[in-house]
Amino acid sequence: MYVIIVYDVNVARVNKIKSFLRKHLNWVQNSVFEGEVTKAEFERIKDGILRIIDEDEDSVIIYRFPLDFVPKREILGIEKNPIDDII
Amino acid sequence: MYVIIVYDVNVARVNKIKSFLRKHLNWVQNSVFEGEVTKAEFERIKDGILRIIDEDEDSVIIYRFPLDFVPKREILGIEKNPIDDII
Repeated sequence: MYVIIVYDVNVARVNKIKSFLRKHLNWVQNSVFEGEVTKAEFERIKDGILRIIDEDEDSVIIYRFPLDFVPKREILGIEKNPIDDII
Repeated sequence: MYVIIVYDVNVARVNKIKSFLRKHLNWVQNSVFEGEVTKAEFERIKDGILRIIDEDEDSVIIYRFPLDFVPKREILGIEKNPIDDII
């Protein structure tokens, strides 16, 4: 499946969540990651996020799409971080 | 069509872009808006964003989906802003 993850976490946990997500997904913008993952990877990513965030303070949105559905993305302004193929 | 918009703009322009997007879409998280729009509305939104942002400094990602395709959303942690039906 294809996922887009957007996080809004306390600055104390930003680096932690960013480096965790970089291991699994492509960095698209400051707080946005996306990529194709298996169901097992997806569960690992969710578990990892839950271990890092404070569920009473932070918020992480996960959008999930069917396999091979890659959403159309358009960027206005600068492309903060070009997609690199970490996967 | 359904759109998700994530912005990463200089703090000087955050309130401006937020209040602009609130007129057209639903606020999902700190810097994330989404909603169903017509093609004409979509063009107005893009024009509005381009008038507000500094294209050399800010970055706005627009994901676009076919009509009636509403992506599955899951939130880990707190729901920073419950969807309200502005539209």
